[in-house]
Amino acid sequence: MCAGPAAELGVTLAVLAESPDAAAAQVVRSAPVGDHADIAAVLDFAAGCDVVTFDHEHVPSEVLAALVAAGAALQPTPAALVFAQDKVAMRTRLTQLGIPCPRWVAATEMDEALAFGELVGWPLMAKAPRGGYDGKGVEIAFGPEELTPWLERGLVLLEELVDFRRELAVLLAHSPSGQAAAWPVVETVQTDGICTQVIAPAPGIDPDLAARATEAGLRIAGELGVTGVLAVEMFDLDGERFVVNELAMRPHNSGHWSMDGAITGQFEQHLRAVLDLPLGSPLPRAPVTVMANILGGDEPELYSAYRHVLARDPELKVHLYGKQVRPGRKIGHVNVSGTDLADLIERAQHAADYIQGVIRE
Amino acid sequence: MCAGPAAELGVTLAVLAESPDAAAAQVVRSAPVGDHADIAAVLDFAAGCDVVTFDHEHVPSEVLAALVAAGAALQPTPAALVFAQDKVAMRTRLTQLGIPCPRWVAATEMDEALAFGELVGWPLMAKAPRGGYDGKGVEIAFGPEELTPWLERGLVLLEELVDFRRELAVLLAHSPSGQAAAWPVVETVQTDGICTQVIAPAPGIDPDLAARATEAGLRIAGELGVTGVLAVEMFDLDGERFVVNELAMRPHNSGHWSMDGAITGQFEQHLRAVLDLPLGSPLPRAPVTVMANILGGDEPELYSAYRHVLARDPELKVHLYGKQVRPGRKIGHVNVSGTDLADLIERAQHAADYIQGVIRE
Repeated sequence: MCAGPAAELGVTLAVLAESPDAAAAQVVRSAPVGDHADIAAVLDFAAGCDVVTFDHEHVPSEVLAALVAAGAALQPTPAALVFAQDKVAMRTRLTQLGIPCPRWVAATEMDEALAFGELVGWPLMAKAPRGGYDGKGVEIAFGPEELTPWLERGLVLLEELVDFRRELAVLLAHSPSGQAAAWPVVETVQTDGICTQVIAPAPGIDPDLAARATEAGLRIAGELGVTGVLAVEMFDLDGERFVVNELAMRPHNSGHWSMDGAITGQFEQHLRAVLDLPLGSPLPRAPVTVMANILGGDEPELYSAYRHVLARDPELKVHLYGKQVRPGRKIGHVNVSGTDLADLIERAQHAADYIQGVIRE
Repeated sequence: MCAGPAAELGVTLAVLAESPDAAAAQVVRSAPVGDHADIAAVLDFAAGCDVVTFDHEHVPSEVLAALVAAGAALQPTPAALVFAQDKVAMRTRLTQLGIPCPRWVAATEMDEALAFGELVGWPLMAKAPRGGYDGKGVEIAFGPEELTPWLERGLVLLEELVDFRRELAVLLAHSPSGQAAAWPVVETVQTDGICTQVIAPAPGIDPDLAARATEAGLRIAGELGVTGVLAVEMFDLDGERFVVNELAMRPHNSGHWSMDGAITGQFEQHLRAVLDLPLGSPLPRAPVTVMANILGGDEPELYSAYRHVLARDPELKVHLYGKQVRPGRKIGHVNVSGTDLADLIERAQHAADYIQGVIRE
C-alpha cells in the first residue's frame, strides 16, 4: 500500500519479498525474493537502499543488529522497534513513563502468577512477549492450571482483564527530526480478536479524553524514539480514562481509513516520516470515515462480488491486497466517507461482507 | 499515475516503456522496453494483456489495426481513437453531431484558405491534422503567405480565431457497457499554449452552461464510442456559449485535480472504464481544488525545493512523475483543496513556481 504514494512522491521503492507472488512484489518494480530472517539476504537487499523500514515487527534482533553494523539507515531504529516487538519491554517502558496501562507482571514462576491473580482477580490475560499478532499469542487464563504451558515455554506477560467500554487507537507519525502529526483518535471494532471495523473519528469521544490519548501517543513516540507511523491501541474504560493495550510501529489496520479519509494517508505519511521529509496534514477530508476489513471467505474468486459492490455504491473505495484468499485472512478493506455514521457503517460492512461471501445480496 | 490506483484495485499493470528509465517503468513491475510504432513489439506486449490502452494518441493506425487483427481488446477502440488523433475527423464528426465548434475548413489549396479567410477574417488558426500536442502543430496565421508551408505539407485544418472569456474542460469517463460519469466542469489556465493551472469546479460558472457543456461531453463520448477518460477542451465565449477546441481520449492534465479532489480520481476511473468495471463517483471531496503544473526549470535537482514546499504547506499534494527535468517539460503537479479560491491559487502556484525555480522564497 506504499506503492501508490511512493510513485506520487517520486520515491523509488524496493521490497524484500517472501515469494515472487507476494502482494508487495506484484506492485513494486524491484522485489527480490528473500527471507527477512536471513542475514545475508537482508544485508544484500539493504545495500541498495537509502532507508530501510519494515511492514511487520517480526524481524529478528540479530538481523537488525547486522543491518546497523553494516551502516544501514533503519527506520524505526532497533532501539525503538524493540518496544513493538517485546510486550514486556513495552509495559516496562510505558510504566516508567507513567502512561496508563493495565496492571501487569512478567512471570516465570507459578508463584508470581498466583500472587498477581490474587491481586487483580481471575481471569487474567496471558500474552507471549514476542511474536503475536491479530489475537495470536494472547489468551484468557481462567485459572492457574491454564498458565502451566505458558510458564513451561518461559516468560509470560500477565495482565489484568480490563473492563472497557470500547477500543480506541491513536495513530501518528514521528520523523527522525522530531516532527510529529497525529490523526484524529479512532474507534476500532474487534471480532474474535481481529479488527473488523474502524470509525474515524471515534464517535462521540470526549474531547478531553481524545486530547489526553493523543498526548500519550505523542509522548510515547518521542520518548521511545519512534520513526514512521506509530499505532497506540487503547481501551476506553469509561469515556474518561484509557489504558494502552498494544503498540505497532508501522502503518496499521486502524489507520487504513486515512488512505481515503485524510489529507495525508498513513502509507504516504510513513514514507515521509522514515525519509525525514516534512510530514503532511493528518486532517480528515470528511466528517466521518468508516473502514471495514475484507476477510477471506470460502470463495477464492472475488471478481463478481467486487463488481457488484462497486456498482452498488460508487462512493466506496475498495482496496484489495492481491493476496491469496484464505478463510479469515485480511485480503482488503473498504473505506467510505460522509456525514451519516449509521449509513456509512451499513455501506462499508455490506461491501466487506458481500465480498467475503457472508451475505449474498 | 495509474500505478497507485491499479495496486489498490487489485489490477495488474504492464507498460510498454520507451526506455528502461521511463517514468512509468519505474513504478510498474512488468515494463518491457519497446517502441509504440513497432508492430512486432506492440503485438508481443499485448499478447500478455487482457485489455490494452494508451497514454498518448500517437500510436500509428497500422499498429492499432494489427492489434485489432490479433484480437487484442483495445480501449478506446481505433474507431473512437481516430477522433482524438485526427483533428479533421474530429471537426467533421462533431459538426455532424451539431456540437458547437469554431468555424473551420480542411484546406489543401490556397484558394480554399483564401475563401475561408474572407469568410471568418484574419488571423486564422492553422492546425496539423495529426501529431500535435501542448501547442505544437498549432499556429496563428496572420496572412495567406504564412499558410504556404502548411499547404506544402498537405492538408491543413483552418479554424476561426475565437474570442473567448476563458477555457473550460469537461472530463468524463465512459465504459464499454455505456456507463458514464462526468466530473464537474473545470477552468483551465494556459500559458504559452501549455496548461499551467486548473480550477475545479470552474469558478462562478453558469449552471446552465455547465449542464450544456457536460451534456455535450456525454453525447460526444456516446456517439464516438469513447471508452476510458475523455477530455473535451472548450472555449467559454461569453459565459453562456461554448465551442469545443480539442478532444483527448485518456487521462488528461485538466483532470489531475481529481486525484486528490474527487472521490474517484481520473487514473482510477480510466482503469475502471477500460476494464468495464462499474465507474466510481466523480463528486468533489472539497468545495474547490486547484491544480498547478510543475514545469522543468534550469535546476535538474528538485529535492531541496520539494522539501521546502512540503514543509511550507502540509496540505499540499505534490505529484512528481520521475521524469528527467527539461526546461518547460511537465514534470509534476500539485493539488490543494479547500474553500478560499484566492488562497488555494496562491498556495498551488507558489509550490509549482518554487519547485520550478522561478521564485526563491
